[in-house]
Amino acid sequence: MRIKGTHYRTIWPHSKHPEIIQIIDQRLLPFEFKIVDLTTVQDACRAIKDMYVRGAPLIGATGAYGMYLATLEHNASHESVLRAATLLKSTRPTAVNLAWGVDRILNKLLPFANPGGHSQLALKEANLLADEEVEFSKEIGQHGLKLIQSIHAYKKGAPVNILTHCNAGWLACVDHGTATAPIYSAAAAGVPIHVWVDETRPRNQGARLTAFELAEENVAHTVIPDNTGGHLMQHGLVDIVIVGTDRTTRTGDVANKIGTYLKALAAFDNDIPFYVALTSSAFDWTMRDGLNEIPIEQRDPTEVSHMEGVHEETGNIHKVRIIPDKSPVANYGFDVTPARLVRGFITERGVCDATESGILRLFPERA
Amino acid sequence: MRIKGTHYRTIWPHSKHPEIIQIIDQRLLPFEFKIVDLTTVQDACRAIKDMYVRGAPLIGATGAYGMYLATLEHNASHESVLRAATLLKSTRPTAVNLAWGVDRILNKLLPFANPGGHSQLALKEANLLADEEVEFSKEIGQHGLKLIQSIHAYKKGAPVNILTHCNAGWLACVDHGTATAPIYSAAAAGVPIHVWVDETRPRNQGARLTAFELAEENVAHTVIPDNTGGHLMQHGLVDIVIVGTDRTTRTGDVANKIGTYLKALAAFDNDIPFYVALTSSAFDWTMRDGLNEIPIEQRDPTEVSHMEGVHEETGNIHKVRIIPDKSPVANYGFDVTPARLVRGFITERGVCDATESGILRLFPERA
Repeated sequence: MRIKGTHYRTIWPHSKHPEIIQIIDQRLLPFEFKIVDLTTVQDACRAIKDMYVRGAPLIGATGAYGMYLATLEHNASHESVLRAATLLKSTRPTAVNLAWGVDRILNKLLPFANPGGHSQLALKEANLLADEEVEFSKEIGQHGLKLIQSIHAYKKGAPVNILTHCNAGWLACVDHGTATAPIYSAAAAGVPIHVWVDETRPRNQGARLTAFELAEENVAHTVIPDNTGGHLMQHGLVDIVIVGTDRTTRTGDVANKIGTYLKALAAFDNDIPFYVALTSSAFDWTMRDGLNEIPIEQRDPTEVSHMEGVHEETGNIHKVRIIPDKSPVANYGFDVTPARLVRGFITERGVCDATESGILRLFPERA
Repeated sequence: MRIKGTHYRTIWPHSKHPEIIQIIDQRLLPFEFKIVDLTTVQDACRAIKDMYVRGAPLIGATGAYGMYLATLEHNASHESVLRAATLLKSTRPTAVNLAWGVDRILNKLLPFANPGGHSQLALKEANLLADEEVEFSKEIGQHGLKLIQSIHAYKKGAPVNILTHCNAGWLACVDHGTATAPIYSAAAAGVPIHVWVDETRPRNQGARLTAFELAEENVAHTVIPDNTGGHLMQHGLVDIVIVGTDRTTRTGDVANKIGTYLKALAAFDNDIPFYVALTSSAFDWTMRDGLNEIPIEQRDPTEVSHMEGVHEETGNIHKVRIIPDKSPVANYGFDVTPARLVRGFITERGVCDATESGILRLFPERA
């Protein structure tokens, strides 16, 4: 998608120096646009852990490119790439795409005693994974577009109000996004839409990233505090909720950014369709009970106690403390929305019910 | 309650100059403690509108003292006090206590052709209202304490985890609070408790005020983003939710700070008791349908787009912009929690079901 009119992906090999992988430092958006070079596994680990990159699909792609960087290390061995895989997978616990992306490259390398001699193979596979994720995002866009068009028809032409939480946009993916893919497809198809953007405390990915990318793409939107969605739904101001996921069980339980569960409850209470958009890499086919099995990351308290923004007088980016210094803080990164609250999944293969049988209808090879 | 060990109310007549009403400028807490003088109706209006004072019970008391200030104006007449009442009532739409507090003093003054000659009567009545609210808060504390004690017994002595949203603390009242009154009573009675404090975006009354007052009273607490409560409830980390209200219908629908409805849904979904603590001045006996009848205030977008805090290097209070400057914002102040999600009300007269018959059992004179 576009930033100031120029097309970017979120991760790509340097055009002239393919031993360098480039990313956007998303910690600085929307206030600053900065491209960062990754040249080692440690760089990739830091980029994931410190959230230069975030969003389950992008974390998966970064894990894959990180494995490519592992093959470039001096005397890269069987052991060193296995160690790299373990390191990369340990950076964040909740998103299942990370292990999926890492393992996909690892499995290509394991047959070889000297993975260092097969870095081109690793790069090709990481590029393929990235291209596939982009293709899948586009497919999600087309399947989701039909849902939005049907609401638009039902509303007799009035704009469709879509609520989303956190950033499952192109910045969370390689391009196009998951939750935002239907939004961009609808905008491209000329369907009038308006997006309610949850701020998404504590890291404000909605207010900082989703609002930024929608503004860059000229999609009508309004930023709201996370507290607001229920009120809007009670008053008929939301037609559909679309969110992403960091891990979804084969039974349809959805781990996503903390607070997603509250919006799913409100959507259910007001009979508003609540959809989860995901590429199949976000399914964890080994899990059946999201609430008890999916690990929930706890992050640094300063993400809650401090807030970053632009000081309007100086234009500088400042961090300020927003709670009393005596008060402790808890910072859970994700929650789990039970399948019973989810109307359906929008995947690259189509839309399905949020049940094991619904999911397996689209992915019969996982039965 | 205490600030740095000294007891304060939130509003009081100056001890030597009773023509001055004093308040704490709550906009500056927890970073700065400043007492402000009110000497005119305009001062009282500004204090309410700009949220020097906030919280339904305190707004009611400020309205009452504002009417006293109206009697001190030069040549205070029948018309001028009626005008003052209209002005004061127009400052904020949602809290019903405001009109109640204003009208209580107005009704004392209306029999007189020259209200200016009866300012002592007005002051006496405003003081009486404030004292009664304090007394009612204490009663709420005692009734709520029994609920907390019964949970404590059920938990076999483990600490009782209480979640609250916004600030319905002593800072929202004249003293003791509504939602916090049972908390302070439990702490005084030696019942081990821990309070989850919702940050309460956009104005952060939880993180700024509730955390501050709990810290000053040495009550164990943890600040959490508004998104977190559902996850905590799913995992058995919340035993009871207690919130305040700005207006509750005679049928039990509860207007309170935006986001309260989402917590009520999560409590209901996890079978956790959700209580609303209120003095009877927060009942609107004329309304039956909260969702359609209670006016919901919309406030300035900068409350969402900007955030205030302490810059740690300089110690100065800074305001920073936290969203892209192209993105519009919506800022609804309140939402309505339907009575069906409320386990009960904790009032000065006891605890009752969230139904018209339950409420009228305690307040039969309203039948």
